[in-house]
Amino acid sequence: MARIESKLARMGLQLPPPLSAPGGVALPFPWVNLRDGRAFVSGHGPQEPDGSLAGPFGKVGAEVSEAEAHLLARKTALSMLGSLRRELGDLDRIVAWNRVFGMVNAAPGFDRMPGVINGFSELIIALWGAEAGRHARSAVGMASLPFGIAVEIEAEVTLG
Amino acid sequence: MARIESKLARMGLQLPPPLSAPGGVALPFPWVNLRDGRAFVSGHGPQEPDGSLAGPFGKVGAEVSEAEAHLLARKTALSMLGSLRRELGDLDRIVAWNRVFGMVNAAPGFDRMPGVINGFSELIIALWGAEAGRHARSAVGMASLPFGIAVEIEAEVTLG
Amino acid sequence: MARIESKLARMGLQLPPPLSAPGGVALPFPWVNLRDGRAFVSGHGPQEPDGSLAGPFGKVGAEVSEAEAHLLARKTALSMLGSLRRELGDLDRIVAWNRVFGMVNAAPGFDRMPGVINGFSELIIALWGAEAGRHARSAVGMASLPFGIAVEIEAEVTLG
Repeated sequence: MARIESKLARMGLQLPPPLSAPGGVALPFPWVNLRDGRAFVSGHGPQEPDGSLAGPFGKVGAEVSEAEAHLLARKTALSMLGSLRRELGDLDRIVAWNRVFGMVNAAPGFDRMPGVINGFSELIIALWGAEAGRHARSAVGMASLPFGIAVEIEAEVTLG
Repeated sequence: MARIESKLARMGLQLPPPLSAPGGVALPFPWVNLRDGRAFVSGHGPQEPDGSLAGPFGKVGAEVSEAEAHLLARKTALSMLGSLRRELGDLDRIVAWNRVFGMVNAAPGFDRMPGVINGFSELIIALWGAEAGRHARSAVGMASLPFGIAVEIEAEVTLG
Repeated sequence: MARIESKLARMGLQLPPPLSAPGGVALPFPWVNLRDGRAFVSGHGPQEPDGSLAGPFGKVGAEVSEAEAHLLARKTALSMLGSLRRELGDLDRIVAWNRVFGMVNAAPGFDRMPGVINGFSELIIALWGAEAGRHARSAVGMASLPFGIAVEIEAEVTLG
């Protein structure tokens, strides 16, 4: 059985189905773009188990607490892993994480983005380990994110 | 005749000349940086046919409507293609689009960035097709963009 | 003697020690991530010579002047070069700068991010020269940066 998916199962985690995007807007791009042995991963938001976008929605530091946002970053990791599994067939094909760009929908005065995006980084490292899971990272505050999601993350990985 | 440029001509589209940057600031970087078979593309804004930055300027959702911003994203694509043609000589050298990072100067409460950046993505896919034009994408809201432009986009492509 | 470090010494510049991060938050990621002959560089902020984060803190255009922010961008370059030297052993291993993403903690109405991030770009070009130091760049305004720093920059370089 696949190594990463075995770990997910032992942790009791399930990957969500494809995003049920809010109506009214086309999304003319793939969630994962395979090029030259790498996967460029589009900005993902947190998903509920039914595939819809996960809330709470709004600005971290106002409508969304830091602890809630940390959980949303973890759900964003699961959303991204769902997209990667559908595209790659097997998450074990990811041999190295290169770069993670973590974006937080930040209320005025909120500057604890690193603690929020740790919800993503901690899960990746738990699954891939310290060497393959190692990723360069920024964790910054945005003026706005699509559909009012509180966290969005894009990434790049190397395939084996 | 070059394939992509033929398509541009059939669509009645022209690529703008180099940016006439607003006075008073040096821009000590290239618009396109060729490295190891890839082109890293600096953040571009929309241009008028005379090479100046295109308005309307300001925040999308306030001074700039969503429809206007969609057109500005398309003009940003033409600006980027102008830079790429000057650097590469021939746009057909671009064999794959890897990543597009779409930034919108967002008014408080505006969260429809995907619809805006579609103005860029739709043109790239019309020109390169579904496979080569396929790109990972984020479309997010910034607190501010240089010179008050409403849209800025950076990208990475693979060269043949 | 190493070429880049000789230049730094001739310019009277010293690289800061590892960041003394503000207490209370884990940073579970490396400052530099080496993958496949490239270094992905995490978002860095400006450092003081003692390794702490450098101020002034807050928003450029309000608490922080444009001239102060330009100096903070230069200090961010030195912070990044310190991380790269620790990871690579020798800065001469960097044969090409690929991409620089410059983020400014922007007050409402401040849109002169290019002038700020020039503090970074000018030093890189002074050290590596016009060809190897050449980098694609965006310079944009964020709603918030970690710990209230005024400037944060991430990058990608090619190793020889």
